[in-house]
This record gives sequence, structure tokens and C-alpha cells, in this order.
Amino acid sequence: MDNKVTMENQEGRRLTYAMVGGGKGSFIGPIHRMAIRMDDLADLVDGCYSHVDDWHALIERCRGKIDFLAVCTPNDSHYAIAKAALEAGMDVMCEKPLSMSLAEATELEAIARRRRRILGIPFTYSGFPMVKLARDLVARGELGKIDKIVLEYLQGSFRKIDFSKPLDKRNAWKMDPRKSGPSCVVADIGVHGFHLIEHVTGLKVGSVLADLSSFAPGNRLDDDASILLRLSGGAKASFVVSKVATGEENGVRLRVYGDKASLFWNQEANNYLSVKHPFGTEQIYKRNAPYVAAISETSARLSRIPAGHHEGFIEAFANIYREFCAAVRDRKAHDFPGPREGVRTMRFVEAVLRSNKNGNRWEKI
Amino acid sequence: MDNKVTMENQEGRRLTYAMVGGGKGSFIGPIHRMAIRMDDLADLVDGCYSHVDDWHALIERCRGKIDFLAVCTPNDSHYAIAKAALEAGMDVMCEKPLSMSLAEATELEAIARRRRRILGIPFTYSGFPMVKLARDLVARGELGKIDKIVLEYLQGSFRKIDFSKPLDKRNAWKMDPRKSGPSCVVADIGVHGFHLIEHVTGLKVGSVLADLSSFAPGNRLDDDASILLRLSGGAKASFVVSKVATGEENGVRLRVYGDKASLFWNQEANNYLSVKHPFGTEQIYKRNAPYVAAISETSARLSRIPAGHHEGFIEAFANIYREFCAAVRDRKAHDFPGPREGVRTMRFVEAVLRSNKNGNRWEKI
Amino acid sequence: MDNKVTMENQEGRRLTYAMVGGGKGSFIGPIHRMAIRMDDLADLVDGCYSHVDDWHALIERCRGKIDFLAVCTPNDSHYAIAKAALEAGMDVMCEKPLSMSLAEATELEAIARRRRRILGIPFTYSGFPMVKLARDLVARGELGKIDKIVLEYLQGSFRKIDFSKPLDKRNAWKMDPRKSGPSCVVADIGVHGFHLIEHVTGLKVGSVLADLSSFAPGNRLDDDASILLRLSGGAKASFVVSKVATGEENGVRLRVYGDKASLFWNQEANNYLSVKHPFGTEQIYKRNAPYVAAISETSARLSRIPAGHHEGFIEAFANIYREFCAAVRDRKAHDFPGPREGVRTMRFVEAVLRSNKNGNRWEKI
Amino acid sequence: MDNKVTMENQEGRRLTYAMVGGGKGSFIGPIHRMAIRMDDLADLVDGCYSHVDDWHALIERCRGKIDFLAVCTPNDSHYAIAKAALEAGMDVMCEKPLSMSLAEATELEAIARRRRRILGIPFTYSGFPMVKLARDLVARGELGKIDKIVLEYLQGSFRKIDFSKPLDKRNAWKMDPRKSGPSCVVADIGVHGFHLIEHVTGLKVGSVLADLSSFAPGNRLDDDASILLRLSGGAKASFVVSKVATGEENGVRLRVYGDKASLFWNQEANNYLSVKHPFGTEQIYKRNAPYVAAISETSARLSRIPAGHHEGFIEAFANIYREFCAAVRDRKAHDFPGPREGVRTMRFVEAVLRSNKNGNRWEKI
Repeated sequence: MDNKVTMENQEGRRLTYAMVGGGKGSFIGPIHRMAIRMDDLADLVDGCYSHVDDWHALIERCRGKIDFLAVCTPNDSHYAIAKAALEAGMDVMCEKPLSMSLAEATELEAIARRRRRILGIPFTYSGFPMVKLARDLVARGELGKIDKIVLEYLQGSFRKIDFSKPLDKRNAWKMDPRKSGPSCVVADIGVHGFHLIEHVTGLKVGSVLADLSSFAPGNRLDDDASILLRLSGGAKASFVVSKVATGEENGVRLRVYGDKASLFWNQEANNYLSVKHPFGTEQIYKRNAPYVAAISETSARLSRIPAGHHEGFIEAFANIYREFCAAVRDRKAHDFPGPREGVRTMRFVEAVLRSNKNGNRWEKI
Repeated sequence: MDNKVTMENQEGRRLTYAMVGGGKGSFIGPIHRMAIRMDDLADLVDGCYSHVDDWHALIERCRGKIDFLAVCTPNDSHYAIAKAALEAGMDVMCEKPLSMSLAEATELEAIARRRRRILGIPFTYSGFPMVKLARDLVARGELGKIDKIVLEYLQGSFRKIDFSKPLDKRNAWKMDPRKSGPSCVVADIGVHGFHLIEHVTGLKVGSVLADLSSFAPGNRLDDDASILLRLSGGAKASFVVSKVATGEENGVRLRVYGDKASLFWNQEANNYLSVKHPFGTEQIYKRNAPYVAAISETSARLSRIPAGHHEGFIEAFANIYREFCAAVRDRKAHDFPGPREGVRTMRFVEAVLRSNKNGNRWEKI
Repeated sequence: MDNKVTMENQEGRRLTYAMVGGGKGSFIGPIHRMAIRMDDLADLVDGCYSHVDDWHALIERCRGKIDFLAVCTPNDSHYAIAKAALEAGMDVMCEKPLSMSLAEATELEAIARRRRRILGIPFTYSGFPMVKLARDLVARGELGKIDKIVLEYLQGSFRKIDFSKPLDKRNAWKMDPRKSGPSCVVADIGVHGFHLIEHVTGLKVGSVLADLSSFAPGNRLDDDASILLRLSGGAKASFVVSKVATGEENGVRLRVYGDKASLFWNQEANNYLSVKHPFGTEQIYKRNAPYVAAISETSARLSRIPAGHHEGFIEAFANIYREFCAAVRDRKAHDFPGPREGVRTMRFVEAVLRSNKNGNRWEKI
Repeated sequence: MDNKVTMENQEGRRLTYAMVGGGKGSFIGPIHRMAIRMDDLADLVDGCYSHVDDWHALIERCRGKIDFLAVCTPNDSHYAIAKAALEAGMDVMCEKPLSMSLAEATELEAIARRRRRILGIPFTYSGFPMVKLARDLVARGELGKIDKIVLEYLQGSFRKIDFSKPLDKRNAWKMDPRKSGPSCVVADIGVHGFHLIEHVTGLKVGSVLADLSSFAPGNRLDDDASILLRLSGGAKASFVVSKVATGEENGVRLRVYGDKASLFWNQEANNYLSVKHPFGTEQIYKRNAPYVAAISETSARLSRIPAGHHEGFIEAFANIYREFCAAVRDRKAHDFPGPREGVRTMRFVEAVLRSNKNGNRWEKI
């Protein structure tokens, strides 16, 4: 009767999950929980939310009892928790970046493959229905051969910090190399942008040239980057990503230019997608309008309510979880970012860091 | 630990509810369920979704066992179901319009009062955080004395119908006076607009002058209306509402002009609110930005995620339910539309119909 | 060689003109002059700019020597000056409203016809290229049968006045019935809106129902109006016009809904026109893009520079003058508002005033 | 009486000018002429419009008789014509790029200085009133220390070409190294972007890293570029410029991020400027609103009509000419781009070409 998504595991029980992290003051933990609840995908049965170090005990406790573990901790523990959970036979949804290093990401990918476990990474922007439409328009050849991509991911969050006082917990770990890893802005949000480019265009980034900066007072890690990318097929991309773009909230804006048409998607107006041709009017697609379904079954399927009634960030997040839980249920691939994307994004992070260190020269990824 | 809203009834149990209507093909039923789940407000324990006529049995079954009943049926059964549920001691969330007539609405209000039951009506637009901010800006005197209101509620849904074929179920009942009542567009979405005006401005509509039309082929009810309103304090409003505004999806756009400032809210860009003063820059407020909380505690409290990460229609709906469930739990008033608003909107509908019938003259509401 | 418009009169001389009004502090006088100069249409050879009362002498002086007179004075002298100029054998471009009363407008129309003189009225908004495109789309049947029109013309100019001090000259005459006539906002800018509706839709307004207000302190004339209109073919319009819409600059926004498509034009983004169909993407037309010329020769002809390089208010004004000067040169009709539009707009003003006086009932125009 | 700008030369005569280029099919020639006429700055008294090679004779003819020469030819003749005109004692307005090489630009600067001639270059975007406001906001310290600049200049003009046919004249010379010089897109529109950055921020670009592409079929010159810039004070810029950005018209969009605030200007909505602070609402400034004058006298002075009545590209062009003609009249500096800007933009072009040739490494400019 209901249009909710029914998710049961192979034994016919409703899916269950536990969570590490996501306690008081967490941004992302509640989003995981709301997203899962909205579509009634799974029941939260255990967790160590604010006492993250208790994760070993949690995994022991949950062994054989839950379907998946959601990892919402700072970067430095992703690898160890995900590894332990996979090896305990759990599927895992692990926050980005997947790990502190490419080596760790590669190892997690191998473990997941060996153990036949599902590993998901919530690159949220690929969950927006209009991003799926963008991807499917490209795949149908609507844009022709893609030549140029322009991507911005601009936040001003580090401008809201009063640096004369001790940093609050969330900002503190993001600027701390021990917690955040060798990169701040590139590992934290740059990976979203990188994934978005590859997801929408279907092209592979071959090399990068990056110029990193640390503009926030006392910040030892990158908080701003300008990155050039060369992609398969000869396409080029220009990508700026920042946490010091004063006054920006979450400015993810993607432009893709092919030789037949172009597209523009702005996360802060996510229910729309603009497509432009050389000799016709600009066309504004609206989420879940009837003509969308004819082009992108996925875009329609991942929409809940009609055009004009907007869906937002939590819904996009839930779309990632829908596909992930379907994989948990079916034990086969679905449309969500997994270990391959986790490895590629870590390749990207390391290539960016090398390029910056080596005088902004091109580095293969 | 969690930032979810914990809702328990007076006996310390989680809230439970049942639903009438909202089965296959329903627009609004799934929204009720998703909204409730997103914030983990209550558990759905019973329902007659597609076999609406079984509501008597449902109420009998649930008597004493559920906290509230969600009524998602066509207009003609709202009154009877709500009445029976209230008299069975249940709280009720009943879709708009509350009833087919003012008399019925008045009776429901009386029953709810006498039985001390909570009766909610999801006038969704009043659940958007930026509408709460608008209301609170007005209440603080930011706009000064309000003189003029311009409201549009423009849909093009009736232009998407192929009238050469039998109507689908949803459109059929909306155009059928026996199911829809004496009004279509005014009762269906005009009541949202009326409520939005009174909710944001705090003014009371005193009289209306309305010109109704039926532009859709074969439609015997109103599908387009131009309505003038006179409000307390001498303010005037111009309101257009339509289901034949070709190409519009859900165009709710509110402008309020005071003698000190004005505001503009567009549902299709609901995370923003524009405020204009005679001698300063236009100011764009963003949902859940730090400066919003300083003005409107409610706007901040009814937001889940930071500015730049958009919330949409389901979240606004969930906000109505949050406040409703808090009332169910606390047995006292909270910030959601109830019987008073139900009665006023039905007064509005009847006054509009009288005005149109009487040569578009002014009618008191 | 040049793409400038070459304008010569029947004797092969460049056109010449004189101006009454438009002196220091004038808004509209300089616009007339800039518009004429931009396209090199005519030479200004005489004028009484700040000493408006010298117009009799000016007309005597210029008799037989100029091609046309531009009348940029307050409303109360339009009739007398235009009449004298027409009778002196001059063509006339007269600011709106054409006169203080319908009777005067009718008389001017008759004089112009009898004397075979060209009389133009700068209803500027009809000079915008995207308005021409809108008109031509409607004329081609792109929208189908038009059912509903929603028009706003919202200014906040009267909110910028400090009423504790003497009014400046421009505001003073607009609020003074002796200078402004029996209406302020309707005669001053309402006529623009009325003309825009008839120009774009090709329909004729048959009757009006109006509710006028005077919100500005001490204002004896209307500064705000809500007007309902019934048009030929059964279409209806809702029109709000105001000078007390705090914070608005010059908010002319037109929506036209047909049974096949709709259009939206916003003067404050005048280089674009949005067209929406029930089952396709929203389409954004851009001024002077190649596909525009294929639909509207006029829209392309009245554009000077390519899409992406915006034209504005002065250019639209110049378009009115281009067509007017072509008529002066050719002694035949061109595409600009003339006596017929002057008379119709005065009919509208008088019908609005009657409706408001008679308890907001319908009045024929 | 008039608000037109009165321009006379040192002998008390109205300014006069001649033009080379700007004949049939020219984009920019008519804009020069319309801009000059709109503000009544000077009279066009001679020219070789379509027979550009006749410029020697023209200069001879006009020697001592005109105040300035407007050079609207393809790039390859800028240097020779400007040089001859300066040496003939004329002031010169020369289209961008000033020359084919830095050496030529440097020589022109020296000649102008030695001969005490005025040399102007119409970097149009610096003539928009809201760009002047942007510059003045930065100069007042409103943005604090500038860290990051993001600039796009995106056109899709080369996507409108049918490469299976012979190119039309305008596109042909832009892709021909003999006519266009060693660069196409960077020299043609990249210089506008470079100038805009330095004009608004007051910072100096120290070095560039550029990656050029030729995506249009058969194009031997650059038609797309991604450029990183390092500026004085430690600021960094990311700049993308293209003629193959399919569907873009003239997408000049500037974002400047300081440690206190940021600004955003979009040429295709040129009458607005957005300013964002970390803890306040986004503020939209509107051209010629009263509060603009209080911040930027220049922005107000270079506006002709009130906020809400838009000005566009021709008006911005006219602003460059206003200042240039004032310099011609006064024989002293005014607010327009001259030889210094011409030299700097050519330095930029050459550094970009070197960087691209040298494996995209940093090059000093």
C-alpha cells in the first residue's frame, strides 16, 4: 500500500544498523538518522555516539546482530572502524573521506571485496535527483563531447570562527592534522566535488594541478584550493574549493560544457537543472516533472513528491541510503558510491597534495 | 544524545497513530508518514489506506490504543471521520479543508473543546522556517504598520489533464461537488493562502470580494479566483489562486508591505526570505543562519540542518507535526494550526462563494 | 554604412524637435533626449525646459520649423499643449497620461485625425524587445486561448518621502489633484499596466472593478489599487499597482496564462522572457538570440546588441521613438502607442475611479 | 538646464571624432557611436568604416581637425593606427587588446606620454556603475583583506559556428593568428577579466599559471583557458575564460572574498551587487539607489536613471567615454583605462602564453 521503500535482509527481517559518532553537536550523524527514518529503511538498534572510542565494544556487541554500521566519526578513525566492521561481517556506510591515505582506502576496498561486504560512502551530491538527471542527459549524448567543466564548492565556514578563542570541537578537529589527515578542505569537501565531476560526466580524471592555501589564522592545513584537472577524452576542468569564501554557505555549482549543449546545477537551488543549446532557449528542468521521468528513470525514482514541492539535502542523503540498503538487501550493486569511489577520491587527494608540494605541477592520479 | 524530537504520551509510551486514506496514488498520505518518521514522532500502528470506507471499523479497533488519527481522505469525509475520532477520545490531524461547510467546522471545534482533544490541520506553508521568521519579523514591528499584501497561489495542474479521457481518481474527486464540496480551488489551496496571510501578518481578514472562474473544460467548480481582502487595521490584500495557471507547479508567493519595510517569500525558494527597506539594501535571510535565531527562536528550532543545506516541503510538514505531537504529549497549545484556523478558513470559503454569487460584492467573513 | 536609424522628414531634412518640460530635476525629460540621441533620430532645436508656462511662445516660435514637440510636463498641461501643437501642425510625443479626462483625450484624438498629425504616447514597457516577443508569441497562438493575466506594477517611491518636511517638486505635483488630476497611481503608472495587458494579449478590457487606497500620510489621491479586469474572450486579469510597496523600485511583472502555455516577463530582468508549457521544461528566451528573430521580427529589429549584452530602459524608450519618428517620416502608422491607446487608457482611469466610488462594482470601460 | 554631459575642447568647441573600422557587420563600432551619442559627448565628423586600410588618408585628412580617433579594427592594426594618430597629435580611443605584443603596447604608452596625448581603451566592464561600487567598497575596507577571487568569463560564441562552411568575417579574423595575434580568447576577452580583477581589487597580479585549449574545430589559437593568478598581498585568483562554453552568452561573473566580507557581480544582472558578511544577511545593492551614492560617488555619477529602471552595456560603454572625453577636454587624468592598463593586459597575455608553452608553470607578469 505504502510508497515507502521496504527493506528487509536476506532472512526477511527489517534491516538494522548501529552508529559510531553522530552525538551531540554532530552535523552529519543526525542527517544519517533522519535520512534512514524518512524512507523507513532500517532501525537504529545500537550506537556509541559521543563516546566514539567505544567502537570496539560496539562492534563486538553487534556482531551478527546488525546489517550495517554507520561511521560518522572524524577522519582519523574511519579506516580502523570500517576495517573492523567489515571484518566482523558487517556492511558499512562510512563518511568521507574514506580514510587518511590512499593506502588505507585501497586496503578497505580489498577487504570489502574479499569479505563480500557492502561499503558505501555518502557523496551526497550524487544523490540529488537533478544530478541523476544531469548524469543521464550526458550519458544519452545530449551534451555531445564534453570539453570543459567548471566546478565551485565554496563555503565560508572558517570565516565564522572567532580565532581569538579556543576552537569548538568540530572546527578543531578539521584543522588538526592528526584528526583530519594531511588535507583539510580538499579531503573534507574537495572529494565531493571530484566525485560529482566523475559521476555526472562519466569521464575519468587523469591528472591534476593544484594550488593550496591556508588563509584562516593559524590553520596548518589547506582551507582553499584552485585545481585544474585533465580528464579522459581531452576534457578539462577548473575547480575551486574553499572554506574561507566569506558569506558562502554551501555553494556547490557545476557547469558542464559539451560541443552540443551545456548544463548547470546549483546545489542551493537543487530542484532545477538548466540546459543550454547554441541555438535554442535555455531550458529549466524541474525535479519530478513528467518530462524528467522520460529521460531519467533514476531521477524520477529518487523523487518523493511532485515538482514545485521541494526536496532538499536530507532527501538526497536518503537517496544514497536507499540504494545502499537495496544493496545490503540484494547483495548486489546499486546506484551509490562505494569502495571504488572511495579509492579514487583518495587518489585525488594525494595527487593534489603532491602537485601543491611539487610547485604546482601536473600529477597523475 | 540524539537531536531527534522525543515524543511520548502522558503514560510515557511513544506516540502511536493510525491513518485513514493515503493509499496508492495519494499525494498527501505518504507526506504525512514521511514527515512523522523523519523526526521519529510517532509509530503508525493501523490504517485503512485505500479502503477509506472502513474508517468506522478502524476507529473502533483503535479506540484507546492510539494517540491520534491522521485523516487523509477527500473532503467529503473529513467531518464525519474527525468527529467520530474526537468522540472516540482520539486526537486528530485532519487534512484541509477541515469540512464541507462552516457549520461542520464549527461543530468540530466545539467537540474538540468539549472533549479536550487536540485537532490539527496541516496548513503546510505555515510550517516553513522562513515563514516563521516572516511572522516574527512582523510581530517585532520590523515592517511597521502593514498596508498591503499581495499573494499568489498558482498551480497549473488542471492544464496537465487530458479532458478527452476519463479523469484519474485524484482529479476526478477534486472537480466533483459531492466529494470536493461547493468549491474546488478556493477550498483546496485558497485556504492555504488565507491562512498564510493571517499567520504571517497577525491581522484578521474582515471581508472579501471574490471573482471565481471555471476555465477547465467541463469543470463545474471554481478553478481560478481573484480575491480582494480587507483586514484589521485598514490593510488590504490582493490574492490570486488558480489551478489553470499553465506551467506553474506550486507557486506560493507572498509579499507584505508595511510602512517601514516589506517582505517577500517564495515557496519555490523556501530557504530564503527577502526584506526591503526604503533606504537600504535588500536583505536576504537564509534559513538557520546564525542571525535568524536571534530574531526568531521558532525559525531556528524548526530547522534541522545548516544554511546552505536546503530543507523542503516534507520538512515543513514535519514541523507542523512536531508542534502537533508536542501538544498531544503536553495536552496544551503549541504552534500549529487547529480548530480556530479550521473554522476561519471555512468562513473564508463561504464568504468567497457568497461574494461571487452576489455579483462580486464585499462579504464579511 | 552605419546601423543607426536614418530619419529624415518628407523634405529630406533630418528631423528636428523641441521640448516642453524636462528641466532640472526631471526624471523623464532627459530620458526622451537620451533615447532620441542614442539612435540619432532627431535634433533638439528649441525648448522651454524649466519654464513650462512659456510653451505658447515656444509653439509660436517653432511653427513650421520643427517636426515634433515632446511634452514632458505635469499632467495638467498635457491636453492644452498637445492640442496647441497639433493645431500648429506639429506632430507630438506627449507623456502619459494623455490628459486629465477622457473627454480631453477623445478631443486630442479627433484633432490629430482631422489635422493628420502623428500623436505618440511613450508607454515605455511596450518598447522592450521581450515584450514585443511576448506579443508576437501570443499572436502566433503559442499560448492558446488566454484565460488569466496577473500583473503587478509595484513601486515604493512614496515610502521614501519624509512627510514631516515640504514635499519636493516632483512628489508634490503627483499628489496634487490640480496638477495630477483625479487619480495619482492609476493615472501615473496604472495606465502603463493597462496598456501592457492589451498590447501583449491583443484582448480588450471590457470592464473593471477597483479598490483604491491612499496610504501615504496626507495623500488625497490614490496611491495603491487592486483592480480586477474582464477582457474579451472571457479572460480575466488581476492587477495590483502601488506607490507604497515599500522597497520596490519599479516592479512591473506580467504573467499571461493560456490553455496551451504561459509567459512571464519581469521588467527588472527585461532581457529575458520565460515560457512554460504543461509538459515541457520552462524555456528562457534571451533578447536578440538567433531564435528570437525567427519568431518576432520586431523583437530582433528593436534590439541593438547581442544577447548577453543587456539593453535597458533607455533603449526601450528609444524603441518607442524609433517607431514614432518612422511615422513622422513616412506619414503612416508604425508600431507605437498613439491616440487610440491614449483614449483607452483614459477610459480605464475613469472606469476605475467610478468603480471605486460606486462601492467597488463592475464598470464598463 | 540639461543633465547631459557638456564636452568642449580647450578652444571651446564641441568635441569631434573620427572612426576607423566599425562598418557593416561590426559589433563594437556601433556601440562606440551609440555610447557617444547617448551622452552627447562628441560629433562624428569622418571615418573609414568598412575600408579600414584607408586609415592613413583619414588621419591625414583629420590632422588638426578632430579631437580624437576611435579605433575599432581587428587587432593587427591597433598599434599602427594608434601610433600614427598619437603622432598626428590626436587623442585615441583604441579597442582592446591594445596591440599584438607587449613591446608594441609599451611603445604606445611611451608615445602617448611623450606627445601628451590621451589614450583610452574601452575595458567596458569597469564602466558599469555596480563595478565602480564594488571597487569603492573594497577601497573602503568593507571586505577586509582580500584572499580569493573567482572570475568567469564564459561565452559560447564559437559553438554557434557551422565549421563545415567558410567562417564569416568576424569569426574568421578572431581565429587567424595574423589578424588576432598569438592569442584568441585570452587577448580578446581574457584581458577584460584581468582588468576587472585589478580594477575592483586594487591588487596587482604578480604571476600566472595558465592552461590553454583549442576546442573549436580547426582553431589554431586558444579558445578556452583556465588561469591561476597570484596577486599582491598574498591573494589568489582562479579565472576561467572561454568561447566554447556552449549556450553562454556573455557570462562575466566576479566573486571577491575578503576576510570580512565578499562581493558578487554578474554582468548579466549588472544593476545589482551582492555583498555577504559572515554573520549577517546577504545584501543586494541596486544601481543608483540612494544608499549607493553615500558609498560611491562615482557609481552614482555614472548612473543616468533611478534604480528599477535598468541600464545596460551601452550605458557602461558610454561611461568609459564620459571619462575619456572629460580627459580630452581637461587634459588630465580621469577614471578610465589608459596606456598603463593597456600595457598590463598585454603583459598578462604574454605571461599566459609563456606559462602555457612552458608546461603550465608560473610566469611573472
